[in-house]
Amino acid sequence: MTGRLYGLGLGPGDPELLTLKAARLLDAVPVVAYFAKQGSPSNARAIIADRLRPGVIELPLHYPVTTEIPRADPRYRDALDAFHDAAAADIAAHLEAGRDVAVASEGDALFYGSYMHLHVRLAHRFPTEVVPGITAMSGAWALAGLPIAQGDDVLTVLQGTLDEDALTARLRGTEAAIIMKLGRNLPRVRAALARAGRLDAAFYAERVGTPAQRVLRLVDRDEAPAPYFSLILVPGWAR
Amino acid sequence: MTGRLYGLGLGPGDPELLTLKAARLLDAVPVVAYFAKQGSPSNARAIIADRLRPGVIELPLHYPVTTEIPRADPRYRDALDAFHDAAAADIAAHLEAGRDVAVASEGDALFYGSYMHLHVRLAHRFPTEVVPGITAMSGAWALAGLPIAQGDDVLTVLQGTLDEDALTARLRGTEAAIIMKLGRNLPRVRAALARAGRLDAAFYAERVGTPAQRVLRLVDRDEAPAPYFSLILVPGWAR
Repeated sequence: MTGRLYGLGLGPGDPELLTLKAARLLDAVPVVAYFAKQGSPSNARAIIADRLRPGVIELPLHYPVTTEIPRADPRYRDALDAFHDAAAADIAAHLEAGRDVAVASEGDALFYGSYMHLHVRLAHRFPTEVVPGITAMSGAWALAGLPIAQGDDVLTVLQGTLDEDALTARLRGTEAAIIMKLGRNLPRVRAALARAGRLDAAFYAERVGTPAQRVLRLVDRDEAPAPYFSLILVPGWAR
Repeated sequence: MTGRLYGLGLGPGDPELLTLKAARLLDAVPVVAYFAKQGSPSNARAIIADRLRPGVIELPLHYPVTTEIPRADPRYRDALDAFHDAAAADIAAHLEAGRDVAVASEGDALFYGSYMHLHVRLAHRFPTEVVPGITAMSGAWALAGLPIAQGDDVLTVLQGTLDEDALTARLRGTEAAIIMKLGRNLPRVRAALARAGRLDAAFYAERVGTPAQRVLRLVDRDEAPAPYFSLILVPGWAR
């Protein structure tokens, strides 16, 4: 009998935004895996730190350092592929030994999540169940108290890594929008929002689910790079 | 001292997909409100039926019967506005008497949810907190085990109420898509997916979060009207 793989969404950061199901499974599985950047504490582990039982096997999955390789370089993708292959092999060893493994994933595991790279490598080989989680965007619009979309509104989820013309065109063609992956892309995202006539409607949220969380109108935000778990909300709701 | 208003997302249907926070608040508030269609049991209440304490005040909010009024008729909107005004007044009476009120909402309360109509009427008058919930779409892609979007993928949320040309254009211009509000719109949605070249990639999920839940490829689904809590998923992920 092999073990069972769980892709567990943990929600945006507040440990109380775990689902009852995710909490139950974390209390039951012998192995908990999570992604982490080299030299940084794992954001996923931080959410469940108070819930990890003594004796649970922790399996941190440390991303390789790729900052010196441009994203468009084939070696960047090769390095990530090799990392995901090795991480999947580490998890498979536990599953083959009969131990259930939960991959603890911030937000929702199948929505722009690193877990997806393990899922496509393992779900056809082992019994697998995905437990959905609260997305960062849901956490952000709840914090803002912002009705995001209603009725026939189209809602578009965009990444700040898109170029300014593409962002502008997308923003012109949607009622509601979410823009993720801000970081150093914030000035370009802001320019696209202005060109699309949506800058005044946009809200900016950061560090959602942590004690340092805050939300404000984007026009009141400076141009410093955006931190982890930040995003922009453009509501489609119009009364 | 007035009471506190909570917009509580309950998730897609499985009571175990409540968050720890929603469960705690439901165990604490004296008043639980929920929407229901006339003559039908409330889907929101069904999710929390086993969690309602003896003595809790239930406040069902029954939608008016509007089936005889076309959606485009101004009287349709007037009837809904009057209903939302009355529902907000009923809740305000409890809040003014110092009782906290949780509005139990399927999915996520601010994402195409009825709670939004109460939020815009009450949140400026009373202390208000929104607790995000698992969306129906997250529940569906978890059930399907379907990585929905990664990297720079654009994800577009569409309603099946849009006309076929609009749906087709939207589907041509996105990597990943979710289509909600299927019902009797399913044949038109299917035609739009075919015109956009995305029919073979589409999955259909229904009754997610209930014992009758199922997911299958859309090409294997007949043309009968789609039931409650059904949606279509078009994954953007491409390895």
